[in-house]
Amino acid sequence: MGCGTVIERIVVEVDGYGGMEDITKSVAEIVRKSGKKEGVAVVFAKGSTAAITTIEFEPGLRKDLPAVLKKHVPYEFDYEHHKTWGDDNGAAHILASIVGSSITVPFKEGKLLLGTWQQIVVINFDTRKRTREVWVAVL
Amino acid sequence: MGCGTVIERIVVEVDGYGGMEDITKSVAEIVRKSGKKEGVAVVFAKGSTAAITTIEFEPGLRKDLPAVLKKHVPYEFDYEHHKTWGDDNGAAHILASIVGSSITVPFKEGKLLLGTWQQIVVINFDTRKRTREVWVAVL
Amino acid sequence: MGCGTVIERIVVEVDGYGGMEDITKSVAEIVRKSGKKEGVAVVFAKGSTAAITTIEFEPGLRKDLPAVLKKHVPYEFDYEHHKTWGDDNGAAHILASIVGSSITVPFKEGKLLLGTWQQIVVINFDTRKRTREVWVAVL
Repeated sequence: MGCGTVIERIVVEVDGYGGMEDITKSVAEIVRKSGKKEGVAVVFAKGSTAAITTIEFEPGLRKDLPAVLKKHVPYEFDYEHHKTWGDDNGAAHILASIVGSSITVPFKEGKLLLGTWQQIVVINFDTRKRTREVWVAVL
Repeated sequence: MGCGTVIERIVVEVDGYGGMEDITKSVAEIVRKSGKKEGVAVVFAKGSTAAITTIEFEPGLRKDLPAVLKKHVPYEFDYEHHKTWGDDNGAAHILASIVGSSITVPFKEGKLLLGTWQQIVVINFDTRKRTREVWVAVL
Repeated sequence: MGCGTVIERIVVEVDGYGGMEDITKSVAEIVRKSGKKEGVAVVFAKGSTAAITTIEFEPGLRKDLPAVLKKHVPYEFDYEHHKTWGDDNGAAHILASIVGSSITVPFKEGKLLLGTWQQIVVINFDTRKRTREVWVAVL
């Protein structure tokens, strides 16, 4: 409490090619455990092929968001990145950089100030299922 | 002052389909009222069809940004989201998730460290004019 | 230490049209000098044609990210912004607004919680080489 920062990790398995998982409950639980009533929760995805954003987490948009992104940044393309390492995930890096690795959500009376249909998600853009690591700082 | 976090709400009516409003003065006023001289202002859009970013707020870019976004993520498309709820705003959700729901701006001597032609805006991607709710946390 | 916020500036020359520079070491050094062991580093690009994100900073992706962005938001286009000021950098503004001007990275035991191949970069989308100003707040 007081001035202290609480930093905790969320670990979650996420499908590749734009798979996403709802981590709102885990973030809310870290806020609750911090004992703080007012502040912000910083949510950060470790790794350069994952991203954090908010979305209405429902089956339709889980398909629509990656579909739109992949249409404009196709995985099947001869990216310069593939020449550097022999990797196949250039699109994953580009999409993670555009969507972004962090968001910051204020909370009041211990509750995140999200909309009813607004969830916090981690997206895995890599070309395989991965265990993604998300760090949450409560300030 | 001291360690306390100040959390305040901005409410603003914004046109649909990528309409945007400049909320820089409101954020600056919340920083001023906090009495803090150095810190950061977290700006967060509540709701999954709104976004926060910075832009040079002038009539040309107010048209250019939504025009470019709508060209790549058209509203007139049969998104999976529309099948889930019978909604018509799949593009709004996708665009809000890509642009992002939060930014964090440092301030010094009580002044936000923005560029001269850099304003904080809330964008409403929904398919109708809406009263958007923005939360500002001063740390 | 304690509740105090440390705010420092990074100044770096960056090529135009999506040039990027790795500022991870400078951010880490500001965290180190703050003496804080746990917290977050807010990284903010001043100016409406620059952006902050994370990426694997290697020669391939340094070409791929701007190439993809410019393909979808070409510099050679008659943006409304060009009519307002006679500028030529409408694409720069649009891209900076989409990628975003701030990220927030947690740190623990004095070390930023970045992935091994995840660097913090400032991108200059303007149409000429510019000295970009980045503000870092350690909380």
